[in-house]
Amino acid sequence: MIIVLKPSAAESDAREILDRIAEAGLKPLHMPGVERTVIGALGDERRLGALHFESHPAVERVDEILAPYKAVSREMHPTDTVVSIGKVPVGGEGFAVFGGPCAVEGRDAFAMTARAVADGGAHGLRGGAFKPRTSPYSFQGLGLEGLEILRDVGRELGLPTITEVVEVADVDAVESHADAFQVGARNMQNFRLLTALGQASRPVILKRGMAASVEDLLMAAEYILSEGNQNVIFCERGIRTFEKGTRNTLDLSAVCQLKAKSHLPVLVDPSHGTGVRAYVTPMAFAAAACGADGILVEVHHDPKRALSDGAQSLFPEQFTDLVTRLRPFVAAAGRHL
Amino acid sequence: MIIVLKPSAAESDAREILDRIAEAGLKPLHMPGVERTVIGALGDERRLGALHFESHPAVERVDEILAPYKAVSREMHPTDTVVSIGKVPVGGEGFAVFGGPCAVEGRDAFAMTARAVADGGAHGLRGGAFKPRTSPYSFQGLGLEGLEILRDVGRELGLPTITEVVEVADVDAVESHADAFQVGARNMQNFRLLTALGQASRPVILKRGMAASVEDLLMAAEYILSEGNQNVIFCERGIRTFEKGTRNTLDLSAVCQLKAKSHLPVLVDPSHGTGVRAYVTPMAFAAAACGADGILVEVHHDPKRALSDGAQSLFPEQFTDLVTRLRPFVAAAGRHL
Amino acid sequence: MIIVLKPSAAESDAREILDRIAEAGLKPLHMPGVERTVIGALGDERRLGALHFESHPAVERVDEILAPYKAVSREMHPTDTVVSIGKVPVGGEGFAVFGGPCAVEGRDAFAMTARAVADGGAHGLRGGAFKPRTSPYSFQGLGLEGLEILRDVGRELGLPTITEVVEVADVDAVESHADAFQVGARNMQNFRLLTALGQASRPVILKRGMAASVEDLLMAAEYILSEGNQNVIFCERGIRTFEKGTRNTLDLSAVCQLKAKSHLPVLVDPSHGTGVRAYVTPMAFAAAACGADGILVEVHHDPKRALSDGAQSLFPEQFTDLVTRLRPFVAAAGRHL
Amino acid sequence: MIIVLKPSAAESDAREILDRIAEAGLKPLHMPGVERTVIGALGDERRLGALHFESHPAVERVDEILAPYKAVSREMHPTDTVVSIGKVPVGGEGFAVFGGPCAVEGRDAFAMTARAVADGGAHGLRGGAFKPRTSPYSFQGLGLEGLEILRDVGRELGLPTITEVVEVADVDAVESHADAFQVGARNMQNFRLLTALGQASRPVILKRGMAASVEDLLMAAEYILSEGNQNVIFCERGIRTFEKGTRNTLDLSAVCQLKAKSHLPVLVDPSHGTGVRAYVTPMAFAAAACGADGILVEVHHDPKRALSDGAQSLFPEQFTDLVTRLRPFVAAAGRHL
Repeated sequence: MIIVLKPSAAESDAREILDRIAEAGLKPLHMPGVERTVIGALGDERRLGALHFESHPAVERVDEILAPYKAVSREMHPTDTVVSIGKVPVGGEGFAVFGGPCAVEGRDAFAMTARAVADGGAHGLRGGAFKPRTSPYSFQGLGLEGLEILRDVGRELGLPTITEVVEVADVDAVESHADAFQVGARNMQNFRLLTALGQASRPVILKRGMAASVEDLLMAAEYILSEGNQNVIFCERGIRTFEKGTRNTLDLSAVCQLKAKSHLPVLVDPSHGTGVRAYVTPMAFAAAACGADGILVEVHHDPKRALSDGAQSLFPEQFTDLVTRLRPFVAAAGRHL
Repeated sequence: MIIVLKPSAAESDAREILDRIAEAGLKPLHMPGVERTVIGALGDERRLGALHFESHPAVERVDEILAPYKAVSREMHPTDTVVSIGKVPVGGEGFAVFGGPCAVEGRDAFAMTARAVADGGAHGLRGGAFKPRTSPYSFQGLGLEGLEILRDVGRELGLPTITEVVEVADVDAVESHADAFQVGARNMQNFRLLTALGQASRPVILKRGMAASVEDLLMAAEYILSEGNQNVIFCERGIRTFEKGTRNTLDLSAVCQLKAKSHLPVLVDPSHGTGVRAYVTPMAFAAAACGADGILVEVHHDPKRALSDGAQSLFPEQFTDLVTRLRPFVAAAGRHL
Repeated sequence: MIIVLKPSAAESDAREILDRIAEAGLKPLHMPGVERTVIGALGDERRLGALHFESHPAVERVDEILAPYKAVSREMHPTDTVVSIGKVPVGGEGFAVFGGPCAVEGRDAFAMTARAVADGGAHGLRGGAFKPRTSPYSFQGLGLEGLEILRDVGRELGLPTITEVVEVADVDAVESHADAFQVGARNMQNFRLLTALGQASRPVILKRGMAASVEDLLMAAEYILSEGNQNVIFCERGIRTFEKGTRNTLDLSAVCQLKAKSHLPVLVDPSHGTGVRAYVTPMAFAAAACGADGILVEVHHDPKRALSDGAQSLFPEQFTDLVTRLRPFVAAAGRHL
Repeated sequence: MIIVLKPSAAESDAREILDRIAEAGLKPLHMPGVERTVIGALGDERRLGALHFESHPAVERVDEILAPYKAVSREMHPTDTVVSIGKVPVGGEGFAVFGGPCAVEGRDAFAMTARAVADGGAHGLRGGAFKPRTSPYSFQGLGLEGLEILRDVGRELGLPTITEVVEVADVDAVESHADAFQVGARNMQNFRLLTALGQASRPVILKRGMAASVEDLLMAAEYILSEGNQNVIFCERGIRTFEKGTRNTLDLSAVCQLKAKSHLPVLVDPSHGTGVRAYVTPMAFAAAACGADGILVEVHHDPKRALSDGAQSLFPEQFTDLVTRLRPFVAAAGRHL
């Protein structure tokens, strides 16, 4: 940890901080300069967090040398982790494709879309039973009934299932019906939910929040891993920027960052990432090209009448076309579909 | 609602959409142009939401004419609403000042800060018992014990109390200990929590999310009001931007927007909004000047040793100075402290 | 054009606006509603721009139906435009690779990098003679001498050259030395410069500004085309967001947007787009996958000692590796290197 | 300067960097840690800029201790600088109010607005002769004729004038007609223009770019001061964010930041900062409250027919009201109008 003092800091301020570093068991280093005094602390600086030097009136700035996350870090775990959803490995040599509607709207409708997705080449199904919606007047999902439909249709087609969990009280119900939890962007920093999922046994797909930096996302995963559940998969789904021609700005370089900093697998959601049907397929190709481990795509058997997110849902034939044309990109990335 | 069709849209697409508008009980309007066909729908367009025209392959864009919120809207309720926290009215002719530490760290520490805040001129106390922290390794709050301390100290000083609620399961406990709920930025779109608070009886201070537009904030409040609880107070606390010289970018024009669009009161939190002790006081003055109904300020009896957010906490004497110097600004705004 | 009146607007306001629309030769449309009156204008709404209805006190909002750009629009020009830089076509079936250092630092240094780039498989050279630098104390480029070096080395290697122009007064000098102008992100809305380039004869690579929406970029190109020069190539190079793990946030979906809205070719600059050497290659692959027409990559024969942007410059052997591994991605996109 | 090495860095990398620091005349400091080696450089680190350690493959990160600007810095110049525009001091005990239309549209129109502004209590006039417009099809200003009108009307009313300069070639013409240059947001990093203004003799109002951090703004001013012209006034006018209810997000905390880091005066432009007529007045009050030295406000004698930016222009009577009601806020801030 590097502590930069204000020009107005007194010798006694430096002394006090150096002493507190030593008391915490680290090696303090005094670097008086012409314009500023700089203080270093050598050792495991995470121990210094509790000292809150940034609050000290004589401190201008604290620069941390070490990343604040540990369990998710590639340094602690240099080889890639493979997380399996049902029998589908995510993060190995394969490239995983998950498809399905934003929301489970009914048994027949979901079965129809699911079959199309299975025929189109998906490895797993997605579908929401609990929908966080911006407006209280929008469709909020079928709840438990939605979970049952998801489970039944998944079993019938032999495909693993993913569904969103929005509340600690629902963790058990989701766990007993689906093969993986999804944490949505709006809940990425719902730390109680993350803690509960850290004690669950299913893998967790953790979506990046709309205002979350890659470091925030890594810290959110750290919550889950630190509670015991090591099966976390990141999902880049776009961040909020000034650009309004797309629903969000899909940050594919976040895939590179996550791969460099963590051992955990990374999916990309080009549907929420763009919000525009015509951009989903090219951005899925780009995701494969830059090193993602798979994609999560919204498909609806009749997007014109979808109860949510229809504008970004692919028609079944568009999904089939996506998977077909995706193949050479996946091969170019040294993987297989 | 205005529906702009793609240049490639067929006459039959226009016909289909016009029919669906009429079926929904609105008056359809056909406006064929040289480059685009535009379709209008006259009447309560909120009924059209369920038709999801934005998903239609022939539709380029849907522009809504009416705001998606109703209960929070100033149009539905032209006069200002005053929401009382304990006996402190927020939104009337007074300007409300709430102060306290980020987290309740212990009985003695909290009592010391609270007394300083009371002496400094605060109308109410804030203090967190449940702390959402970016890192799982940071102090997470005292929980129920923190709530009890908050209640006891508030009673002793005769000041109403505000504390954050982070989870549906804690709503009852918070309600029985504090005078107002605070919903933090990270939970602004935790719709389950909003729904639960809509069924509670205490007022809710709803903080703007870091990536939330003013319209998103209005919609989040709509969740609470639509469930029955009409006592919502907005809180602007900064949004996330590229600027890194402050922790967040405090968007004071959001106060103007909220006042123009809604009848509900608005607080400003200059502490989280800037993250820098030296900027808290001038931004508190600016909040009063632009029409806010009050402020929420972090104070700590010993910020150097605060367990969270110390760098933005005022020393007690700074808080007293803030309140003293705030007085003429509040008066210039036609209100009183 | 759709004009939404305020709830407080009088019948006479609507009348006035309807009359002004008719005077401008468009067909006015009156749509009185319960909560708002909406007015439509059918015809070439660009003629209404000069009427500035958005300034009218009775107007709440103006929604434009037609895009504000024409010459750059795909609707006006449905087939792809190919722009050639020297003999290198950009926008056709090939995928164009341009490489070189950020700045021309000297004859020997530039020749060394240029040769490595040529050997590595580049179709053209880039190198800055005029460098816009954040600090007045940083290296500002060699100016005219840099242009001469660029021209000489390009000729020697038989490769076309690209260089940045930062000022109207330099347009002639750049035109007589290089094969294409580059307009940097900071000058994307230097409208005088755009106008001058619209009167020049060389193609222009127009980089997206850090705060520029795709629509702003299209409008900036419109400046150039409207003056006569039809040879504009867009370049996505990242926008400024809250994410700090990369220098900018490379918005690859902008490639999809630009391709949908315009007929002009699109390059991607993964070097400035990420600012991190290790992310340049995967993002170059992603650019090819999502439909870009080529890339602009920074290479330096000795990045450790580069005078600018060294942290994002590839070593020559990394560039060769990039081009080699890029090949199957380009093929998957149905193009050739 | 603090240099953090990668975990993979060799002892020889550290040695090389330590030697280069010593060669540059600074004191190198070796801090080997368990997870990372950290290297410090004590002395005037600005000398190290040319060494570009951030480009070194063994370097993970470089943290600068000292600010990259000098001449603009408050540390170098602790007392406030007062810059006079004509006879109007900006930065002292007064609070300066400049008003006028976005563009000079004609002699009569400008004279009418100017007189209203003078009557309303303004200390100086603003009006654009060269207008940077997003669309090539919009009104671009009257050019030299506009400058003459501005000069004549200013003289007649005895008020100093401010006008935008967009191009090096226009610097002389602007200087001989107006009392201060304005650099618009889009030109904040037009470094050639900044350099030319650094050699001019009139004061420069430097507006913050839409994607510019406060540090970028300080560096842009450094360009001007380093060329000799010490009379720079900053102007906060909003940054570009995801929020679309206002044209930009006015960052008033930037006033606090600029005041803390620099000795130069700061204006606020609440017109461009919000883009909404109704928010201009409250944000002007907030600017005075948080410590700004004055405001720049758009006024038009007939905003309904303004050729640019009418939606944010005040009517003359609104301007008069603003100035009247501003008085107690300015007094509360310890200044006078």
